[in-house]
Formats: sequence, C-alpha cells, structure tokens
Amino acid sequence: MEYSNSSNTEQPQTCLEITMEVHRVVPPPHKSTIHKLKTTLKETFFPDDPLRQFKGQPTGKKWILASQYIFPILQWGPHYSLSLFKSDIVAGLTIASLAIPQGISYAKLANLPPIVGLYSSFVPPLVYAVLGSSRDLAVGPVSIASLILGSMLRQEVSPVSDPVLFLQLAFTTTFFAGLFQASLGFLRLGFIIDFLSKATLIGFMAGAAIIVSLQQLKSLLGITHFTTKMGLVPVLSSVFHNTKEVNGWFSSSLQWSWQTILMGFCFLVFLLVARHVSMKRPKLFWVSAGAPLVSVILSTLLVFAFKAQHHGISIIGKLQEGLNPPSWNMLQFRGSHLGLSIKTGLVTGIISLTEGIAVGRTFAALKNYKVDGNKEMMAIGLMNMVGSSTSCYITTGAFSRSAVNHNAGAKSAVSNIVMSITVMVTLLFLMPLFQYTPNVVLGAIIVSAVVGLIDIPAACQIWKIDKFDFIVMLCAFFGVIFISVQDGLSMAVGMSIFKILLQITRPKTVMLGNIPGTDIFRDLHHYKESMKIPGFLILSIEAPINFANSTYLNERILRWIEEYEAEDHKKQSSLQFVVLVMSAVSAIDTSGVSIFKELKKTVEKKGAELVLVNPLGEVMEKLQKSDEAGDFMRPDCLFLTVGEAVATLTATIKSQVSNHVI
Amino acid sequence: MEYSNSSNTEQPQTCLEITMEVHRVVPPPHKSTIHKLKTTLKETFFPDDPLRQFKGQPTGKKWILASQYIFPILQWGPHYSLSLFKSDIVAGLTIASLAIPQGISYAKLANLPPIVGLYSSFVPPLVYAVLGSSRDLAVGPVSIASLILGSMLRQEVSPVSDPVLFLQLAFTTTFFAGLFQASLGFLRLGFIIDFLSKATLIGFMAGAAIIVSLQQLKSLLGITHFTTKMGLVPVLSSVFHNTKEVNGWFSSSLQWSWQTILMGFCFLVFLLVARHVSMKRPKLFWVSAGAPLVSVILSTLLVFAFKAQHHGISIIGKLQEGLNPPSWNMLQFRGSHLGLSIKTGLVTGIISLTEGIAVGRTFAALKNYKVDGNKEMMAIGLMNMVGSSTSCYITTGAFSRSAVNHNAGAKSAVSNIVMSITVMVTLLFLMPLFQYTPNVVLGAIIVSAVVGLIDIPAACQIWKIDKFDFIVMLCAFFGVIFISVQDGLSMAVGMSIFKILLQITRPKTVMLGNIPGTDIFRDLHHYKESMKIPGFLILSIEAPINFANSTYLNERILRWIEEYEAEDHKKQSSLQFVVLVMSAVSAIDTSGVSIFKELKKTVEKKGAELVLVNPLGEVMEKLQKSDEAGDFMRPDCLFLTVGEAVATLTATIKSQVSNHVI
Repeated sequence: MEYSNSSNTEQPQTCLEITMEVHRVVPPPHKSTIHKLKTTLKETFFPDDPLRQFKGQPTGKKWILASQYIFPILQWGPHYSLSLFKSDIVAGLTIASLAIPQGISYAKLANLPPIVGLYSSFVPPLVYAVLGSSRDLAVGPVSIASLILGSMLRQEVSPVSDPVLFLQLAFTTTFFAGLFQASLGFLRLGFIIDFLSKATLIGFMAGAAIIVSLQQLKSLLGITHFTTKMGLVPVLSSVFHNTKEVNGWFSSSLQWSWQTILMGFCFLVFLLVARHVSMKRPKLFWVSAGAPLVSVILSTLLVFAFKAQHHGISIIGKLQEGLNPPSWNMLQFRGSHLGLSIKTGLVTGIISLTEGIAVGRTFAALKNYKVDGNKEMMAIGLMNMVGSSTSCYITTGAFSRSAVNHNAGAKSAVSNIVMSITVMVTLLFLMPLFQYTPNVVLGAIIVSAVVGLIDIPAACQIWKIDKFDFIVMLCAFFGVIFISVQDGLSMAVGMSIFKILLQITRPKTVMLGNIPGTDIFRDLHHYKESMKIPGFLILSIEAPINFANSTYLNERILRWIEEYEAEDHKKQSSLQFVVLVMSAVSAIDTSGVSIFKELKKTVEKKGAELVLVNPLGEVMEKLQKSDEAGDFMRPDCLFLTVGEAVATLTATIKSQVSNHVI
Repeated sequence: MEYSNSSNTEQPQTCLEITMEVHRVVPPPHKSTIHKLKTTLKETFFPDDPLRQFKGQPTGKKWILASQYIFPILQWGPHYSLSLFKSDIVAGLTIASLAIPQGISYAKLANLPPIVGLYSSFVPPLVYAVLGSSRDLAVGPVSIASLILGSMLRQEVSPVSDPVLFLQLAFTTTFFAGLFQASLGFLRLGFIIDFLSKATLIGFMAGAAIIVSLQQLKSLLGITHFTTKMGLVPVLSSVFHNTKEVNGWFSSSLQWSWQTILMGFCFLVFLLVARHVSMKRPKLFWVSAGAPLVSVILSTLLVFAFKAQHHGISIIGKLQEGLNPPSWNMLQFRGSHLGLSIKTGLVTGIISLTEGIAVGRTFAALKNYKVDGNKEMMAIGLMNMVGSSTSCYITTGAFSRSAVNHNAGAKSAVSNIVMSITVMVTLLFLMPLFQYTPNVVLGAIIVSAVVGLIDIPAACQIWKIDKFDFIVMLCAFFGVIFISVQDGLSMAVGMSIFKILLQITRPKTVMLGNIPGTDIFRDLHHYKESMKIPGFLILSIEAPINFANSTYLNERILRWIEEYEAEDHKKQSSLQFVVLVMSAVSAIDTSGVSIFKELKKTVEKKGAELVLVNPLGEVMEKLQKSDEAGDFMRPDCLFLTVGEAVATLTATIKSQVSNHVI
C-alpha cells in the first residue's frame, strides 16, 4: 500500500483489505486498585520474586527452604566435598597472604591501629561464610571505605591526640554502616545503590585512588609532619613545602628520608611489576597475590638486620598478641559525635556495599550462578554489625582480593574460613614478627593496590559512548580530588539524577513517515526513504507523560503543528489529522491526562482531528477515566496501529469526498 | 499470517511475501557531537524556538522585532484603538475596585502596613503593562505569596517590635524574588516551575487557603492576643484557649468581641453570596468584583456613624497620603538576615511565578494567543525588582483578579494601567477615607478570596485518575496545615520527583503476542486474543535504559526467560529467540549499553539467540559504538518490526530443519 499515491486504490487489493480490517483498541482487563498496588509493590521491592521457590511446597520443606534462604551455608554445606576443600584451602591461604599486609595497611589508612585491620580480617569473613551467597567474595577491609572513614572522622576528632575516642567512633560508624546496609537489604531498597552509575564509580574510584596514593607520600617519603587534609592541593603543598627548606631533592632534608624513599621505591617497583605480570598472565595470579607478603617479610628482615629504624625508617612498632577483644562497650550511641558517626556510617556503608555487591555480581555472572542483591546486603550489614562489637572496622567484599580468590580456584565461602583461620594464627602467634615492618612498605602495598582502581580504558569507552556520562565521571573525579570524597560523590550522583530528570522534562517527539510499500511507520529523520502522508501529521511521543513534561509536550506538539502548517502553506494541502502514537508512553499522571483535552481543543480549532494510536493499558485506563464525554475513546479516533489509522481515515475522507461529488 | 499455525504456509501467500520482504534497520544519519549538543541544548532551553521569527529578516526589521520582543507593548500598542480602550477602561475600573480592598488586606496578611498593599498595586502593573505579554493578567499582591512572606520573615523578626527592619526585609525579599524570577526566565530555566505538579498545587493551595483563613480568625473574632505561629494546632489552641476563660460563646469575653463577630459574619455572608452569584452566572461578574469595595465602604460608614471603634471593633487607623516613596535605600544586602531574605525570596518567587504563569497560560489558551513562559518570567521578575525599590512587596498575576479582568472584557494590558491610575488617585486623595475601615472586613475579604483556592472537584478527579497523585496532594495539604507552608511544598515536590525516579528504576517490560491474522504484536495481558509464538519470547522494554534501571532490567529479563523455560518444560518446545522490542527505549547510557552484552551472553548460554527490534536512532548509535564485534548489528538479529523478525526467523529455522532432513 502506498498511502502517498492515491492512484494506488485502482490496483487489486488483497493486502489492503486485510489491513483495512481494523482491530479494535480494547481497554485493558479490569484490575482493582489493591491488585495494581500489589503488583507495583512487588515489582518495586521483589523484582526477583525471591519467594518463588516456596510456592506449593509442603510445610516441612518450606522450613528447610527458609533456613537455607537465611543461611546459604545450609544449602551448599551438605554437598561440600574433599576435592572442593582442596581448592578452597589453596585459595584461602593465597588470600590470607594478601589480606594480612593489606589489613595492616588499610587500618593505617583509616588512622586506626594496624592490628584492627587484622581483627577485621578474622571475624567478618566467618560471619559472611555463614550468611553470604557469593562463592568468590573475599571479605575484609578495603581501601576506599578505610580512606573515607578515616578522613571523615578526622574532621572532628584527632586520631593522634584522642586515639580512644577515635577508635570508639570508628566502631560506632561501623555499627551504623552495618545497620544501614542490613536495613537496605531487609527493606528491599537495594536499588538505591544503582544510583551510583558506572560512570560515577569509575570517576570516583580513580579520584579516590589518587587521594589514597597521595596520602601514602607521607610513608613513602618518610615525612613526619604531614597535613591532615585529604585534598590534592593541601597534600602537595605539604609535600613540597618541606623540600623548599633545603636544596635538592635527595638531600638529607629534615623531612624527607632518603633511606625511606629508596626502600619505598624498590618495593613499589617490585609490587607493580608483580601486578603487571599477573595481569598479563592470569595463571600467575600468585605472583601479585604473594608479592605484598614477600615485601613485608623482606623489608622486616632488612630493617631488623640493619637496625634501619635508627636510620630514619619508621616502623609499625610493638603489636599486641591475641584475638579480637570485645568492643560492644565502645559503641557510642549518645554524645556530640553521634551525628558524625551516623553520617560517616551512611557514606562508608553505601560505598562498601556498592563494592561488595558489584564484586559479587561480577563473579556470579562469570560462574553463572545467582547472587540476591538484597540478601547480600543483609549479609554484609550483619557482618559489619557483628564486626563492630568485636573490634573490627568496616569490611566488605574487596575487588582485588576476590579476583585473586577466584583465580586461585576458590569454590565456596570456605576459602574465607581458611583465610580467617590463617589470620587467627597470625594474631595468636606471629604478631611480634611485624614489630619491625617499615611503614613505607605498607604505603607501597596500598599504592600498588589502588593503582588498579584507575580504569582508563573504561573512561575512554565512556567518552566514546556517552559524552554526558563522561562529564559525570569527570565531576566525580575532580570533586573527589579537589573538594572531598563525599562531596565529589554526591555531586556526581546529583548530576546523574539531574540528567534523568532533564530527559524526562524534555521527552522526544518524532515525526513518523511511511516506508513506501509497507504499513511500517518510522522516524522521518532516521529512515530517509520514509515519506509523509498528505493531510496527516504523525507524531510519536517517546516517554511517559507527567507533570514535569506535560507543558513542554503540549507546546512542542503545537509547534509541530505550526511547522506543518507553515510547510502546508506552500503545498496547498491542509492538515486533517494529528496522529499521536502512544506506544512508548508507558505511564501518565493527572497533569499528563489534561494536556490531551487541551490538544484536542487546539487541534479542532485548526479544523483537524486528534487521533490516538495504541495507548497502553494504564494510559488508556486513565484517559478513559478522565474523559467523561468519551472523546478519546471514539472508535474513529483510536486505532491499534498507525497503518490502520491512516488507511481507515484516508478511506473515510475519500468516501466523504465521493459522496459529496455525487 | 498466523505464526502460531504452521499449516498456514500452505495457503496462497501474497501477504506473507510482502511482509517477508525484510526492511533493513539502518543506522541514523551521522551527526557530529557539536550538532547533537546544539540540538539538545535548543530543545532543553529553547523548546518554543523564540527566535524563529527573526530568521531571514533584514537587519532593520530585526531591530524592530527585537524591541517588540523585549517590550511587547510596541507590538500591540500601534494597533490600539478607541473601542479596545473602552473595554479596557471598564475592566480596569472593575479590577481596581477589587484591587484596593484586596491590596490593603493582603498587606496585612504579610504583616506589612496596609498602604504597602496599595503601593504594590500601583507601580508593578505599570511595569507589567510594558513588559508582559498576557492580555488578561491583573497584577498585584496575592494571598499565598503574602502569607509565605509574612510567616517566613516573622520566624526571625517581629513585625510588631521591629517594623522598620521587617519592612526592609520584605523589600529585600521582593528584590531577591524578582532577581530569581528574572534569572529563571533569562537562563530559560522556566521548566523548573513545572516540577510543581497540578496535584501538588491543588493540595498546597487548599492547605494555604485554610492557613490564611485561620489567620483571619484574629480579625473575624476580634482577638487581640493571637499566636504568631501559622500551623492549625497553635492557631486553634490560641482561639479556644481564650474562650475557656469565660462561659458561653457570645458572652462579652475579654478576647472575643461580639460586635466584631456580628459585623464579620454579615459581611462574610454577603461576600460569599456575591461570589456564588458570579460563579453561577459569569455575566454577573461585577457582583463579586464590586462586593469587596462595597463592603469596605459600607463598613467604614457604619463604623464612622456609630463610632464603633470605641465598641471593640478595631480599625485600620490613619494612613499616609501620597505616592510610593523610593525604597532602594532600604534593601539590605548584608547582615545576619541576608540568608533569610534570599530563602524567602526563592520560595515566594517560585510560588508567585507559578501562579502568574499558570494564570497567563490559562487565559491565553482561552483567547487562543500565546504566552512565552520564559519572557513572562522576566517580566514578572523585573516588575518585582522595580517594585522592591519603590516600596512595593512581591506581586504577580492573581487568579481571581485576572478572571474578573477577563470577564469584564479586558482587551490588553491597558486595563492594568487604568487600574494603576485608579490606585494612584486613591493614594493621592482618598487615603483618609480608609481610616475608619474595620479590620474585620479586611479579614472577611481575604477569607472570601481564598475560599476559591479549595478545589474539591479537582481533588476528586485526581483520586479517580491517579491514586499516587492523590497521595502527593494530601501530602502537600497536610504538610502545609500541620508543619509549614514551605515544608509542605517541598515534601510534595520531593514525593513527585521520587515517583518519577521510582518509575525509572522499575520500567515496565511486557510480553508481546501476535494478534491472530495480522502481523501486529501487542501486550499479552492487555489483548486477550493475542497469542504466543512457540520458540519466541518477545519482550517490549518501555522506558529509557540507564544506570538506575539497567540492573533491574537485566534481572527482570532473565526472570522472563526463566519463567518461559519453566512453562516450556511442560510444552516440550524450547526457547529459540529472545526478541527485545526497543521502540520505546528513547535513550540509553553507558550502563544501559553494557547490559545488552551480558544479556546476549546469558541468552546464548541457554542455547537461544538475542534479537533486537527497531532500536531508535540514538540507542542504535550507542549500541554500535560499544559493540566492536558487531554482534548487535548483524542483520540476522536486528529487525525493523516484530512481524518481520518472527517471519524471517521462523523461515530460517524451517529451512534449517528441512535442510537437515534432506
């Protein structure tokens, strides 16, 4: 059929007849408000339908399923075998060798005593092994959450002059972070972490990596008086202000220590090379996994042998032996710092949750099993709540360690248990060995760990695909570097949401044309072969209609009509039908409904008719309810497809014209 | 064609052949990033294309058009005639008779000296007449903005103990409100007021009307000691706490004054009856328009005749004669109250802008002319900035007065000039006459004016159409009544935005089926006659895909696939194609793009193939850019319509099967 060619009607019309059989647009089957509310709530909070497996099971089975649902260990535990355990033991020992030096380092990053980092690698992995559903997640402290916790708490309390209060606040923050995480999971509000878009995260992580690395300049250069601020500017000025006092870079300045720099440089190169080797050949994962422990052992031996602590190399110092002491009596639920603890808990909670969930999902997708986001949140949250009362600070599933765990062949959460036991042994017997570990090596370990957070290829990919996402990324990056970690993050999230709102405020309307020889209608600007049909203005509205865009849509459609008329003027064929294709209008509200009445009036004033095509269920229902006169539901201005609308209306005009002639 | 019936292929196939001619999905014509940015910016900020008329005009003409654009009076002024003037003079005098008593009343509502209300009805209408583009807007102080201004400023400064500072803050607030309004217009950010949805406004206005009326209980009951708070609870307790001291309602209590109550009751009934008459018969618009002035004159005469001021009826008192004194020296751009002024300016600015723009648009639609939202904002903003330096407080186009103006036959902004001159005459010569006007009549005038803001039919309509909008409305209403005007408003706006975000987070996916005998595919749940096609899972995604919903969509589509497979199990026909209909996906971002890769992998693991149908221009482009391998752009998994996809893929399978058999 070619609507644009009127001579066509003379041809044999098998096809046209079939299409001319018009299909009625029917209202959707009636559903009660309660039913609709139930569906909406279910889709919003239970999109994965977690209770599906319970359906139609006997009561006994339901109980078993329920306990398996709450404690995933009951699900995989009974099938656990010796061969699986062999794999897990290798993986567990590998991640323990990584977890011990990283634990000490990250605790220092959070301005906490190094031993808290080891405590945090002991209890939380055990809790997660019982509650968590990921088989690859390696649990422990992570760099970004440590950084944020340390920097936010330091705004009000000094970890140097008041270490006990600082520790109390750290545990309280961990408790609130866990409470927040568990509540998000329990209330099934897990989708909140989706608002941290990929672009935001890439920018944020890169910025945080730089901030973390800059902080390590203190250890790496052996500076004793260092700024307590986090931003790029104060840190750099703190670093270079010191050198200005003396000439030359490697001179024996009061502040910089050449021994420290030399040692730091060597170990950093070693760690980065090890990392590079493992990245090039994933089978050599143990090279990068073992490198931190090797560095710690080597450097400790060096310090011990040369008594380097007397030559300007600062060391960790004496560490207490023994397992985690209880810390529930240190949680502070009152006092002037409560607000700070809650705020820090929120920020670190959401950040570490995002990392944990993303890691879990990534590896679950690789191994083709499923991780329930909300359940994971509860597991991570409970793990932190338990942690906060056993001298642990905030933990989650770490990206780098989980990757090592996966590469080392971990089969289940047992690898976490093995790691935990190794850490326990360390805590009980090996702590004195760390006394001479130099801080510079811990700094080098942190830097080599966070370098991986800077993902330049992903940034390039974002630039290629979506320029606005790239801006969001830059915003997160520079916000973190120049303002603060939490402000950079909120700026980027704000911008992402603003973009969505802007998209909603300015939805697309597209003029459709007919692809000749078919009854397909597509965007005139996209499909160059498509043609306008004289007398018809066919517009497709490509967004839900609501208060934020109804005014715009009204004006924009009027502008389409005016532009059409201006063009018309030249062609001498007048506008007869304004066809609105509603296939993409998935929802509408009261403001949206009201523009149709206005549009109808305006279009009729111009001597044309408003025709709706394919309104979807909900939209149709609301239009019907608002439309007492039944104007929109008249069969002659409501069609199921554009093709049928155009064919029917063209036929009507022709029959009117021919009747008129007769 | 019936895809579900394989025997169909035996029939003569004229139609099938036509459909089988597959139309290629082409990438959209290339546009540079700059070009796209330009289009987006234009659609966002210049959706009405205001500079269209300048195109292709000679320079001289352009200058004339530009000055007409800035000063609309130059556009209609030259064509102004005597007959138009006759209409305008009647309308102008009518609205003046309304503006004078309302001006005095609203100034009292804002805790300002009554004369400021008259000042504000003199200068701003003149400014608007030059700059504004609406022909029906009657400019002056309005109830809600007066209430908000008064109540917000009173939180920090008492209008009784520090009247000069209060006045200074009121002018400063007006200046900031004007600056904010003009900037919104100048920066073309007018769409911000669209975020006050219809539901929010209806709830908010009703709540504000009740708050305003409650405040009038002070004048209507003749209470001398009244609460300074705005909420329902403190006002009512303030009213009834007074009566408890004495017995009976109409006893000569210390606080309530029966003379005042009697007078207030009579005039309130008179005003409400007048309003009712005018509403029933719009031709008698002058009844309600004149009633307030009549009430003022009558009551003033009564007080004067009976010396009622000595019998417990409070009167306005002596008013200064003369025109607006300059007030630019009263603007306070420093000091501790600057933050308050800016905040109050923002809230009152946006509220009065919303009223003014809505009024302008309503009457423009009635008379079929156009009002440029952003230009109007600049006009209203400049009017307030000028007003703030000529002793005027915040003004805008008022609903009730503009309706009277329209009914009285106003033809242009000249009616505002006539009103302004009438007010000027009043200011110069008639002020002493108002000395004996009783406050109770002003209270009655305010109550009768704001009663119209409670729109119960509209509330019912909202309940009928959209339950969530109704909740937003209730939220605004109760928030205003029980918490505060600004909090109620922000709660309702927050909820509306939350709803939109929730809709985005949980977009609909719908399973499509074939309507037998056609190649139309529609929602299986909506169109009961539509049928599934064996081996095909056809899903339509009905929203833009972005970071906020990509995880959900991925999981939801997987659930669809699993459900299909569970059903399959019974039917023994396996899933071969997952067809995603993308017609409604108007935009996509980097997170959105990445789920397609994941989906493709998952679907292929299940032994099926992922097919995309009709991706729109932008989406297609981004998919193409992210897809180095060209997986999505292969012609065998990209189709223009569902019909073509199903027909082609079915044919492919059959040919494969038959080849296999041979």
